[in-house]
Amino acid sequence: MSVVYNRVALIGLGLIASSMFWAMKRGGLAGEVTGYARSAATRDTARRIGLCDRVCDTAAEAVKDADLVVLCVPVGAMEQVAAEIAPHLAKGATVSDVGSVKRAVIEAVGPHLPPHVHFIPAHPLAGTEHSGPESGFATLFDNRWCILVPVEGTDPEALDRLTRLWQGIGANVDTMEADHHDLVLAVTSHAPHLIAYTMVGVADDLRRVTDSEVIKYSAAGFRDFTRIAASDPTMWRDVFLTNKEATLEILGRFTEELFALQRAIRTGDGDHLHAYFTRTRAIRRGIIEAGQDTDAPDFGRTKAVR
Amino acid sequence: MSVVYNRVALIGLGLIASSMFWAMKRGGLAGEVTGYARSAATRDTARRIGLCDRVCDTAAEAVKDADLVVLCVPVGAMEQVAAEIAPHLAKGATVSDVGSVKRAVIEAVGPHLPPHVHFIPAHPLAGTEHSGPESGFATLFDNRWCILVPVEGTDPEALDRLTRLWQGIGANVDTMEADHHDLVLAVTSHAPHLIAYTMVGVADDLRRVTDSEVIKYSAAGFRDFTRIAASDPTMWRDVFLTNKEATLEILGRFTEELFALQRAIRTGDGDHLHAYFTRTRAIRRGIIEAGQDTDAPDFGRTKAVR
Repeated sequence: MSVVYNRVALIGLGLIASSMFWAMKRGGLAGEVTGYARSAATRDTARRIGLCDRVCDTAAEAVKDADLVVLCVPVGAMEQVAAEIAPHLAKGATVSDVGSVKRAVIEAVGPHLPPHVHFIPAHPLAGTEHSGPESGFATLFDNRWCILVPVEGTDPEALDRLTRLWQGIGANVDTMEADHHDLVLAVTSHAPHLIAYTMVGVADDLRRVTDSEVIKYSAAGFRDFTRIAASDPTMWRDVFLTNKEATLEILGRFTEELFALQRAIRTGDGDHLHAYFTRTRAIRRGIIEAGQDTDAPDFGRTKAVR
Repeated sequence: MSVVYNRVALIGLGLIASSMFWAMKRGGLAGEVTGYARSAATRDTARRIGLCDRVCDTAAEAVKDADLVVLCVPVGAMEQVAAEIAPHLAKGATVSDVGSVKRAVIEAVGPHLPPHVHFIPAHPLAGTEHSGPESGFATLFDNRWCILVPVEGTDPEALDRLTRLWQGIGANVDTMEADHHDLVLAVTSHAPHLIAYTMVGVADDLRRVTDSEVIKYSAAGFRDFTRIAASDPTMWRDVFLTNKEATLEILGRFTEELFALQRAIRTGDGDHLHAYFTRTRAIRRGIIEAGQDTDAPDFGRTKAVR
């Protein structure tokens, strides 16, 4: 692979930014990578572990002369960061982001950017339940999807260059319109996260079932929910506040369906339950065939030895 | 390890029975293991892969002279199997099961058994999304919990022997009262499974979001739900029909909590969301410290390479 951008600035140094850094180094995709985080402790950690070629003490300094700037902060912090860096952006630079919501980011960031930069919002669909500068790794995006959400009048050359970067990082690249992105993600990510958070909260609340029992016996299914319910609280608060309508719509459908199944349980309608549970198996097979999950039992947690 | 039972009969040859077989062989815990499955195809498969020392064509033949009989069929099939084997049980034999619900199994099986056998219901909290005779493996129960639910007047010696078998298989053993078991499992297993089935069904229903999008972009969270929603439909139908009250109670609490979070999203109450999402992180840490899940990012699906 060869260098796609001479200088990349990562604003915010959490799981996604740090994984991008290691993946760009692995692929030799960037000349120099600068980084900035609002917290001094995060900047210190980044310097200690060699995250970024140069860690800067201000966002302005980090973006100076960069030909790609990637905003890797929670969606709710995007607007302030955009305002802060705008006067310091180089002519012809591309500004992108990695936020989980796209319409809100476009509205928050777009108006602050000068006309001489290319703004190409993006969302890599990858992550783990861990967060912070030390949680990143080079293989995070391998065979995952990165969705680019070009706004009207996007320069094809700038779009192509950002596409090549993400492909070099290991991802498959799609483009999508912002509102459609937000709906698709409400289904595949935002509603599932809220549901997982809710179930874990309910288990935590129960007085007759002690914490210790919930924890000891979690391997019966519950523990699968606790992984995504351990994700970064600030990031997820912002996702729900900025993708409100689509998330509430999907949650409304979820509740309808849940009530129908509860009714089937109450009335003893085994046929309804069996048919429903049979149908849901097919989606899992599709996901495995598409290379988006492992077929190893239990996500491969246990080594299956006969 | 040494032989705990001279002859063990496994009735039903799915994931749990086959894993018990391989684990008993690994530990040298049983003299001879016989097996029976209602379906001739399953019996043929078992013979082909060497599952059980002897596969019998009737349940009566399988339990003859067994000192341990384990019912490994869906909860809804327990009563018929109990009636079928009852006349053929050896004096002093122990009859156990592996059903996910305990009160209903006690009521279904207990009345059929002759007074000269020990009935000790059990529930190993382990499984994968795969099912059938070929899905079992020896390590399935390692460091998982097996809950024994002794009924009134259980012989301590028989209880101790069954405990030693499960420990030899790799499990930690607890005892619990039937109704409490059913409530704990409603929280840690039954409600989470129904919720996962529901979310996967909703995604499948959505017309604006095509199947292909739901599948392609599933790594953003949704795919975690599809694993448990791929579990055996018959087994789970029976679980919900036989642990109706506890499951509906937990689902009622879940819905209350979900509505409170939906309201916080609608009204923009970020503090409520942030506090809730922070609290749920602690449970995951507890589960990892208790050795009940892996701390590797993403359940260890991805090899984290820096």
